[in-house]
Amino acid sequence: MAIRTLVWGENVHERNNKIVAGIYPQGMHGTIAEALNSDKGITATTVTLQDPEHGLTNKKLAETDVLVWWGHAAHGEVKDEIVERVAERVWSGMGLIVLHSGHFAKIFKRLMGTPCNLTWREAGERERLWVTNPRHPIAAGLPPYFELEYEEMYGEPFGVPEPLETVFVSWFQGGEVFRSGLTYRRGAGNVFYFRPGHETYPTYHDKTVGQVLRNAVKWAYNPQPAIAKPTDAPNVPVDSAPEKITERGPKLHQAGEKGLR
Amino acid sequence: MAIRTLVWGENVHERNNKIVAGIYPQGMHGTIAEALNSDKGITATTVTLQDPEHGLTNKKLAETDVLVWWGHAAHGEVKDEIVERVAERVWSGMGLIVLHSGHFAKIFKRLMGTPCNLTWREAGERERLWVTNPRHPIAAGLPPYFELEYEEMYGEPFGVPEPLETVFVSWFQGGEVFRSGLTYRRGAGNVFYFRPGHETYPTYHDKTVGQVLRNAVKWAYNPQPAIAKPTDAPNVPVDSAPEKITERGPKLHQAGEKGLR
Amino acid sequence: MAIRTLVWGENVHERNNKIVAGIYPQGMHGTIAEALNSDKGITATTVTLQDPEHGLTNKKLAETDVLVWWGHAAHGEVKDEIVERVAERVWSGMGLIVLHSGHFAKIFKRLMGTPCNLTWREAGERERLWVTNPRHPIAAGLPPYFELEYEEMYGEPFGVPEPLETVFVSWFQGGEVFRSGLTYRRGAGNVFYFRPGHETYPTYHDKTVGQVLRNAVKWAYNPQPAIAKPTDAPNVPVDSAPEKITERGPKLHQAGEKGLR
Amino acid sequence: MAIRTLVWGENVHERNNKIVAGIYPQGMHGTIAEALNSDKGITATTVTLQDPEHGLTNKKLAETDVLVWWGHAAHGEVKDEIVERVAERVWSGMGLIVLHSGHFAKIFKRLMGTPCNLTWREAGERERLWVTNPRHPIAAGLPPYFELEYEEMYGEPFGVPEPLETVFVSWFQGGEVFRSGLTYRRGAGNVFYFRPGHETYPTYHDKTVGQVLRNAVKWAYNPQPAIAKPTDAPNVPVDSAPEKITERGPKLHQAGEKGLR
Repeated sequence: MAIRTLVWGENVHERNNKIVAGIYPQGMHGTIAEALNSDKGITATTVTLQDPEHGLTNKKLAETDVLVWWGHAAHGEVKDEIVERVAERVWSGMGLIVLHSGHFAKIFKRLMGTPCNLTWREAGERERLWVTNPRHPIAAGLPPYFELEYEEMYGEPFGVPEPLETVFVSWFQGGEVFRSGLTYRRGAGNVFYFRPGHETYPTYHDKTVGQVLRNAVKWAYNPQPAIAKPTDAPNVPVDSAPEKITERGPKLHQAGEKGLR
Repeated sequence: MAIRTLVWGENVHERNNKIVAGIYPQGMHGTIAEALNSDKGITATTVTLQDPEHGLTNKKLAETDVLVWWGHAAHGEVKDEIVERVAERVWSGMGLIVLHSGHFAKIFKRLMGTPCNLTWREAGERERLWVTNPRHPIAAGLPPYFELEYEEMYGEPFGVPEPLETVFVSWFQGGEVFRSGLTYRRGAGNVFYFRPGHETYPTYHDKTVGQVLRNAVKWAYNPQPAIAKPTDAPNVPVDSAPEKITERGPKLHQAGEKGLR
Repeated sequence: MAIRTLVWGENVHERNNKIVAGIYPQGMHGTIAEALNSDKGITATTVTLQDPEHGLTNKKLAETDVLVWWGHAAHGEVKDEIVERVAERVWSGMGLIVLHSGHFAKIFKRLMGTPCNLTWREAGERERLWVTNPRHPIAAGLPPYFELEYEEMYGEPFGVPEPLETVFVSWFQGGEVFRSGLTYRRGAGNVFYFRPGHETYPTYHDKTVGQVLRNAVKWAYNPQPAIAKPTDAPNVPVDSAPEKITERGPKLHQAGEKGLR
Repeated sequence: MAIRTLVWGENVHERNNKIVAGIYPQGMHGTIAEALNSDKGITATTVTLQDPEHGLTNKKLAETDVLVWWGHAAHGEVKDEIVERVAERVWSGMGLIVLHSGHFAKIFKRLMGTPCNLTWREAGERERLWVTNPRHPIAAGLPPYFELEYEEMYGEPFGVPEPLETVFVSWFQGGEVFRSGLTYRRGAGNVFYFRPGHETYPTYHDKTVGQVLRNAVKWAYNPQPAIAKPTDAPNVPVDSAPEKITERGPKLHQAGEKGLR
C-alpha cells in the first residue's frame, strides 16, 4: 500500500502575493504533492490552514502516515490544540517533514524544545547543498551536491537540538553555512527538517528537491501500528511486577490510584 | 565565585502529608539545597511554587547559574508564562537539573518535545543505579553502582528523545530497568535528568545521591555570558553579508523588515 | 529481491564442546540462518572461520547485503586483513549485526574504536530485555519486554561509544543491567549490536530472539548501490571547484599529485 | 594545577620544506605549544615523531592530561604499538585534540572506526568557520564566525561517525562546506577534531585559532583519576553478584577462569 502522505500548506502568500501565485498557481502544497505523487509508492493529498481544524481532524491524522508541513506568514494562526494533536500523532508514529520557514512553525518548536531560530537574508543568492551522509535513505540517488540558483539564505547557528543525523549542509553565496537536512525521532515518529523552499523562488519545481522530498517521505514512514496512547504512564501493580516483590515502606498512592501529572 | 544554584521545590506533600513532612521537615528543597551547600563551590538557595511568580522572577533567574527542579503533585499549577520564562533562561545558558517526578514537569516536557512518560510502581523496592559512563563528570567519585533500598520504580520505555549521553541505568527489584541519568543540551543550557527521589523515602538524605547532585550542578554550569536574546532570528542585510553579493530575484520582504514568525 | 544475508559462525565450541553441540547440532550459524530464512524477504547462508579466507572472500562480501557475526573462542584467529576487508565493506554499505560475545570480535572493536569491554558471569540466570524505543524497526512486533530464562550476564559499563539509538536494555537476575540493543552507522553501513546468545543456552532457538534477528537484518539493509571506494580522499582541482577561484599562496602539492595519507 | 598538555608534532615538512620552515621556524608543534602556554591554566610541552617511541613513552603519557596531534606526511611511520598505547590512554581518560591533516592519523582512524576521508584542494582560498553551538566551551569567547584568508579546502562528506556535538562548520571560497569542529567521547577520553592548519599557511599564528586550541584543551581535560585497566572485562563470581542467585544450567567456564577474547 502506498504511503498516505498529507501536505499541509499555509496557503497565504499564494493567494495574496502575485509573485508566489505566479510560481505556484496550485499552491505550494499542490506542487509539493505533485512531486510526491510522481512516485507510485506515495499517495499525497493536501489540506490548508483555511480548512476546518486546519484540515487536521483526528480522522484525517489517523489516516496519515507522513505529514509534510510548509508555513511562513501565519504560524500564529495555527491553533494550539491542533498543534498538540499533531504532536501526539507524531509520538504515536506518524512521520513529519518540516520545510524551510516551518522552522518557526509551532509544531516544529513544540517537538524540538528549542527556539529553532537562525539568521536569514532574502537576496536570491545561490545555495549549494552537500550530502554529508552518503547513502543515507534521504540522500538516495543524489549527486555529491546540488544547487539552487535562487534561494533565501538561512545561517547558523540553527537553534535546534543535536540531531540524530546530519544529512545535508548548505553553502551560501553570501558566505554563510547551514545544516539543511537533520533527522530526529520523537516518540515513535520520525522527523526530518529540510531547509530549501522560499516562496518567491521555484524551489519545489526543482527535480532534485522533489527527489529529496520523496526520499524523506519513505524514510519517515513507520509501518508499525500506531501507539494507541502515546502519553500514558501506566501503573504496574505489585502483583503484576515481572519479579515477585512484597510491598513495603510508606506510600503516597492507594492501590489503583492514577499517577500525578 | 560559587555556582549560584536555585532549588525549586513544589512544597506540597511536605505540608499536607505527614510521612513526607517527617522525612523532610525543612522541605525536600531544603534538604537538596543542604546537600549542595556542603560543597564550597556551590551556593544553593530555595524557592517554592507558593512564592510570587513561583519564586522564578526575571531577576532571580538572571542571578541563577543552575536550577534544580522537584515537583510532583502540582505540575499543573505552574503557570505557562513562568515555564516559558525558565525555558528561555535555559536556552540563554542556565543549567537545569530535573529530578524524579519532574519528568512530568511542564518545563521538562517543554524542553524535551516528547511525552516524558514511563511506567511506575510505589512499592518501596530496591533500586540499583549503574554508572554506564565511567569518569563522566556527573559520575565523579562514584563506585560502579550504588543502591537505594527503598524507591519508587520507574520503568522503560521512558518517553524522551535520545540523550546526548546516558550516565546511569537503574535495576529494580521488581524486574524493570530505567535510564536514570540522561544529559541534553538545549540552546546554551545543559540539562540533566536524574531519576531517584520519591517523596516518601529518604533519598535526598543519601550521601551518594548528594554527590551526584553536586556533580550535576558543576557539570550543568555554563560559565560563559548568557545569550542576550536566545530566540532572535536576525536579518543579515545584503551589504552585511560576509561575501559581496548583489541582490536579485523577486522579494517578499522590504529592506529592514522583520522576519515572519 | 530478498536480502542476501551471510551468517558468520566461529564454529569452535559447536565442535569441541558436547553441550554446545547438543543444543546447536547444525552449528549456531545454522540455527541463526534458519531463523532468518523463515522470512521470505531474507535469504541467509552461512560460512565459518574454518573456510578459506574465513568464508569472507571479496566475491562473497560483494554479494552480501547484511553480515551477521557470532564468535567467542577464536577472535584472535580471524586474520587482520580479513577484518579490514569486512570493515571496508561495511563502510561501503553492507549492514553488520554483531551478536553477544562478538562484542570482542576484531571487526566490532575496529568499527567502534573503543575497548568494547563489559563485566560478565556465567550462571544461567534470567535476563529480561526491555524495549526502550517502541516501534523502532528492530523492535517491530515485540511485546514491552521478553525474557530468556537462562543466559550469561553482561554488565555495564559497556565500553562502546554513545550509540545512535538504544533499542533494548536488559535486567539480570543477579542485579546487573546492560544496554542490549544499540545502533550505529559507520560510513554507509548500519551496525547493530544485540547482546543475547551464550552458546551453552538455547537462545537462538527462542522465537522472540528470531524476530529481533529478522527485524535487525531488515533494518541494517541498505538498498542503495555500494560506495565504490569508501576510503578515497579525492583532490578537487582548482578548475573543478564549484565556485570560480584563483589559486594563490604557497603550495605543498604539485597539480595532479595524490594526497598524503 | 595546570593542565599538562603534550603537543605531538610530526616535524617533517618543517625540516624539509622551506616554506613551512619559514612560517614555523620552531616547528608547528612549537607554535601550537606557545599558543597554549599563553594561558596560565595550561602547561604545554612538545615531542615529535623522531623522538624515541615518538616521544610517547608510557611515562610521558601517564603525565599527560591532553594530547594535541598534528601529522601529515608521515602517518605511516607512526608505529602501531604506539598508536595502541595512545588509544588506551585516551580510553583511560586522556583528552585528545586532532588537528587538520591528522584526520588521517592512525590514532584518529583507530578511535573513529571509519575511513575519516574527505575531499581537498590546496589553493590558498578563504575559509570562514561558523560557530554552530554558541556558548559551547570550545567556542568560549568567539565571535559568530572567524575567517582564515589562506587555507586548504576540506570538503564533505567527512567520513566520521555522527559526532556528539558539532561546534563549527566551515564555508570555503571555492564552494565547499565542512564540519570543522566535532566532539566525541571514547571511553573516559574526550576527543575533539579541529580542521584548520595546513602547513604552508600561518594558521597556528592566528589569534582566534589559538583561542580555540586553548578552549579545546580545557574542554578535553578530564580531572578524574585515570581508569587503571580500560580494556578489562572482569568476571563477577556468583557469590559477588549484587543480588543473591544460584548458579544453574550448563557452563563453559570453570570458576576463576578468565574470559575469552
